[in-house]
Amino acid sequence: MIESAPLPDDLLINAADEVAIRQDLVLVALGKRPADRIVRVGRLLDVHTRTWAEDQDIVIRGRRIAWVGPAGAYSGEVRERVDRSGLSAVPGFGEVHKHIESSHLTPEFEAALVLPRGNTWTCEASHEFSNVSGEHNLEFWLAARHRGSPLKIFPLPGSAVPPTAYEWGGGHYGYAEQAAFLDASAMAAGLDEVMDWPAVWNPENPSHERLWGMIRATFEKRGVVEGHGAGLRDLPSINAFAAAGLAGDHEAWTADEAWDKLGRGIFIEIRPHTMPEIIRGLMKRGLADWSQIAFATDDRGASETIELGATDHNLRLAITSGLAPEIAIQCVTINPARHMRLTPFVGSLAPGRYADFVLLNDVAALSIAEVWADGSQVSAAKDYLGPLPKIDWPDWATKTIKIARDLKAEDFAIPATPGRTTMKAALLRPFHWHDAFIETELAVEHGEVQRDTARNITKFAIVDRFSGEGRVAKMFWLGCGPATPHTAAGCTVAHDKHNIWVVGSSDVAMATVVNRIRDNQGGWVLVREGQVAAEVVYEVGGLMTCRPAEEYDADMRRLYAEAAKVDWLYEPTFSPRWFPGFPERLQFATLTCAPWRWVLVAPTEAIPQGFVNVQTGESHPVVW
Amino acid sequence: MIESAPLPDDLLINAADEVAIRQDLVLVALGKRPADRIVRVGRLLDVHTRTWAEDQDIVIRGRRIAWVGPAGAYSGEVRERVDRSGLSAVPGFGEVHKHIESSHLTPEFEAALVLPRGNTWTCEASHEFSNVSGEHNLEFWLAARHRGSPLKIFPLPGSAVPPTAYEWGGGHYGYAEQAAFLDASAMAAGLDEVMDWPAVWNPENPSHERLWGMIRATFEKRGVVEGHGAGLRDLPSINAFAAAGLAGDHEAWTADEAWDKLGRGIFIEIRPHTMPEIIRGLMKRGLADWSQIAFATDDRGASETIELGATDHNLRLAITSGLAPEIAIQCVTINPARHMRLTPFVGSLAPGRYADFVLLNDVAALSIAEVWADGSQVSAAKDYLGPLPKIDWPDWATKTIKIARDLKAEDFAIPATPGRTTMKAALLRPFHWHDAFIETELAVEHGEVQRDTARNITKFAIVDRFSGEGRVAKMFWLGCGPATPHTAAGCTVAHDKHNIWVVGSSDVAMATVVNRIRDNQGGWVLVREGQVAAEVVYEVGGLMTCRPAEEYDADMRRLYAEAAKVDWLYEPTFSPRWFPGFPERLQFATLTCAPWRWVLVAPTEAIPQGFVNVQTGESHPVVW
Repeated sequence: MIESAPLPDDLLINAADEVAIRQDLVLVALGKRPADRIVRVGRLLDVHTRTWAEDQDIVIRGRRIAWVGPAGAYSGEVRERVDRSGLSAVPGFGEVHKHIESSHLTPEFEAALVLPRGNTWTCEASHEFSNVSGEHNLEFWLAARHRGSPLKIFPLPGSAVPPTAYEWGGGHYGYAEQAAFLDASAMAAGLDEVMDWPAVWNPENPSHERLWGMIRATFEKRGVVEGHGAGLRDLPSINAFAAAGLAGDHEAWTADEAWDKLGRGIFIEIRPHTMPEIIRGLMKRGLADWSQIAFATDDRGASETIELGATDHNLRLAITSGLAPEIAIQCVTINPARHMRLTPFVGSLAPGRYADFVLLNDVAALSIAEVWADGSQVSAAKDYLGPLPKIDWPDWATKTIKIARDLKAEDFAIPATPGRTTMKAALLRPFHWHDAFIETELAVEHGEVQRDTARNITKFAIVDRFSGEGRVAKMFWLGCGPATPHTAAGCTVAHDKHNIWVVGSSDVAMATVVNRIRDNQGGWVLVREGQVAAEVVYEVGGLMTCRPAEEYDADMRRLYAEAAKVDWLYEPTFSPRWFPGFPERLQFATLTCAPWRWVLVAPTEAIPQGFVNVQTGESHPVVW
Repeated sequence: MIESAPLPDDLLINAADEVAIRQDLVLVALGKRPADRIVRVGRLLDVHTRTWAEDQDIVIRGRRIAWVGPAGAYSGEVRERVDRSGLSAVPGFGEVHKHIESSHLTPEFEAALVLPRGNTWTCEASHEFSNVSGEHNLEFWLAARHRGSPLKIFPLPGSAVPPTAYEWGGGHYGYAEQAAFLDASAMAAGLDEVMDWPAVWNPENPSHERLWGMIRATFEKRGVVEGHGAGLRDLPSINAFAAAGLAGDHEAWTADEAWDKLGRGIFIEIRPHTMPEIIRGLMKRGLADWSQIAFATDDRGASETIELGATDHNLRLAITSGLAPEIAIQCVTINPARHMRLTPFVGSLAPGRYADFVLLNDVAALSIAEVWADGSQVSAAKDYLGPLPKIDWPDWATKTIKIARDLKAEDFAIPATPGRTTMKAALLRPFHWHDAFIETELAVEHGEVQRDTARNITKFAIVDRFSGEGRVAKMFWLGCGPATPHTAAGCTVAHDKHNIWVVGSSDVAMATVVNRIRDNQGGWVLVREGQVAAEVVYEVGGLMTCRPAEEYDADMRRLYAEAAKVDWLYEPTFSPRWFPGFPERLQFATLTCAPWRWVLVAPTEAIPQGFVNVQTGESHPVVW
């Protein structure tokens, strides 16, 4: 036996530790040093050959796999033997594109939620928290793993920081920042979804240089440049997207679009809401090779994960859509690992990789008995058994709603031109992606332009959370918000810049919502008929909460219950993206990436009312 | 139309140029800037989906593809239209592991030889020239491309510089050198075949730290670590190889070995001499996914390429071994490009990639009509039509045989212990991989131990070409070399350290060979019955010649013809690696990588006779 020096903790991957860990693993594989544990499994899915190997041993040293092969054939000593010969082992599932922020849990609680559901590694599409505290991006995403959480989070610094040149505050990433991130950590895999398409193609766009600076840094450091091709379905755009060097896309909605993108070399990351159609369509078109495909969760709240599942849900959906379970499993293991250049660490049950695996008692049903990560069992059925570090998130994470004043009703008033009895107003509906905004005529009373509840028109505002001044941009929106008087709802989750959005039937109620959100340092507030009726606190970055999923879910249920007592405006808009009732999806209604056009952003000097076409840079008054 | 600034020459990939090139391509794809050329093809192999698309246009801008799609559908202007609608287009073929030095042509002439045979990009396994002039590695390999040669050479700095701790001169690579290479050029894809296996696994091996330093640098820079698993066929070794982080292997000899390696996550690069067996065996075992497989040429002389082909030969062999042509083509396009993390540049006919494609008039027969590279036609049938830069290779490339004296017969004498009439001698055969060398008793005459031609025993020497002193290590070898008196042959190609090897029936003839090689600055010399009978000059690095393949091939034929007049010793050794006649393969007989054990290297202070077991570090006298 060759004696072993103390080994690195093997939590955050770095090249120096990697050498020490692998030097040790080699000796364990050769039987010259003892292994820690052998898990014997009934069969094991080799995702490289897409075949099952029967009756296998997984030999573990530290957090890694040292040896894989027929049960009983390992030549070295071992400290512990575990028999799982009734179960089928597949590699831990990877998320190729996920905003953990959208679970609204901090990473250590996300880990506890998703690990029992098979998800052992995640490429974090990190432009949400980055837009809040850009400089602490890696520090935030690596904190839980650094303290022992078994979920491997690979942050891809967000290209959308800020999302467009018309937004500001929280962080500003360009060439230098991206180069520094990729130098700082081997966990950083590349550049997260490039989604300001006008800034990519148009040399005149004010974000052009910043964005291409990030792309340049990523090429320099051999990272992966991820794209976001929403609405890019025509061949010129798809070809241009590929020509730009954007390697992956999770925004295909139809099989034809996915096919056209695959054919231009774009790695396709299929999301659940379009999965059945895309999978069936690709099969019908004769797709002969699935190696350029992965499954992506993108955004999923913790409540939905509790109800449906995490990556396991995506997999079940793929299987019920007709895909062979083994191919489906490749789409959440080797395929995304290879695309993200992470194969030395994750994506297969092979030596050198983390000993992360999912033990299934029914492969076709994807029924998970146990999950192992870092070489230890971390779940039984849905129960998480692994380490859950206690993290006291610092002020840069918990003191992020910077508004040094009380908002008042006047902040939300929209003054009329003196002498006018009506004024023209610009209107948006949620997910209104047309080139032109809607126009209407609204009454003037007391010198202010008024809502028109009967016509489904109410007021929507964005309140700046970064400057301390609480600057307000406001306008009229259609088909969303409360009809109930003196009622308003708002949230600090306002993709992707994450100022505060608030929609309300009175200006006072809107001010009350924003002030309460500020006091809570983030989250949801619902004011009903003048009183705070419900609230959910997102005290970390205004995006996440540091507690178990079940506790958070209970809060959300209370919010939904109180919200159900409100009469909500509704009219059909871009289906299936917009539903009647509590307008939860307003969180995503102020996106500024493709295919958005006209949006409301926090006021800037150039655009004091905040109403701007992000494709062209044109701005417009909200009333005239 | 958006006006274009002058674009980079787009020869050597670097991140800054990449941005300018892609910004331009995006506008061409969108039809906002004119394209240079459209090539209409009858059908096009989409290697991402493994399907054919009929009647396609490839839209070219500069050296790249800007757009791919149905013929006639491109929306922009175009300067030139080319009709190849009778032909099938597939992506330019890539070599995942090749020592261009083994063609014995400099890179610009290699390009002219292999491009008409479909090979448009090559991962250069660069430890041959690196062992001659380590500091000029990238400069050498990028010189031809820098001057306009259409072959994309991606150098992987060699891990085997020096091959073992027992060799010296020419270059010494460790952490710092590898980090500098990977920082210096985006063309450098990773670390070439790690092949000193004892140095990998054994912490006591004197090369352990150097080698792991190179691995560390490669992990740090997100490069690919290639392996060399020759003789590693048992499960402990295969698992250890994978655990070390060695990502690829081109040394599998059987289907079972390839299968076991695939299952441990090792990317398999199949070479022609084992291809039929491995492909048939993998098919028989039910391989369901070929995405972890590529084809590799490794070493092939220009003469053999003229006779058989380049990558096209590998492909034909795969197809005749039973593999579908489309899967076989993936094994030389998308699969190796993905493995080497080069997909943004090569491996498929998609926007952003180099416009490198092979036009076939018969896919199943792999019959090549034309090859296009950098957006222009570079061949018709076997004729190369592309640019062939004239390179005046500098002294660091052409003055590399440093021997500042004349070798004499005495340099090759093996003195006997005074008073002895016979002595024990160590014997090696070419490709003798046993743990023990062979021992025999040889006669002593005139105070020197003598050859024994009747027993197939002659003398073999390694002459140092680096120090200027021409230090000589010599011993007796079995079953190789000339029986004809006063005859000797030698060459500066002596894998992998590339000192001079010489084998001869007299010490005078051996000295004549070495002196002539020194005068020629490299190559082959055959001395027959005291006279120089033939020679082939490798004036670049002692490994390559700067002239067309046909000229070089003619010289080799003259050498073979003269060599055929010699009576060569022979006895069967490790078949199929050793053949009767001119012992050309002695070039590979002084390798020191796995699975070699006892070898002869140039003398060192620690091992003055140069006879060493590279697995254990043990040395031994050559006679006693």
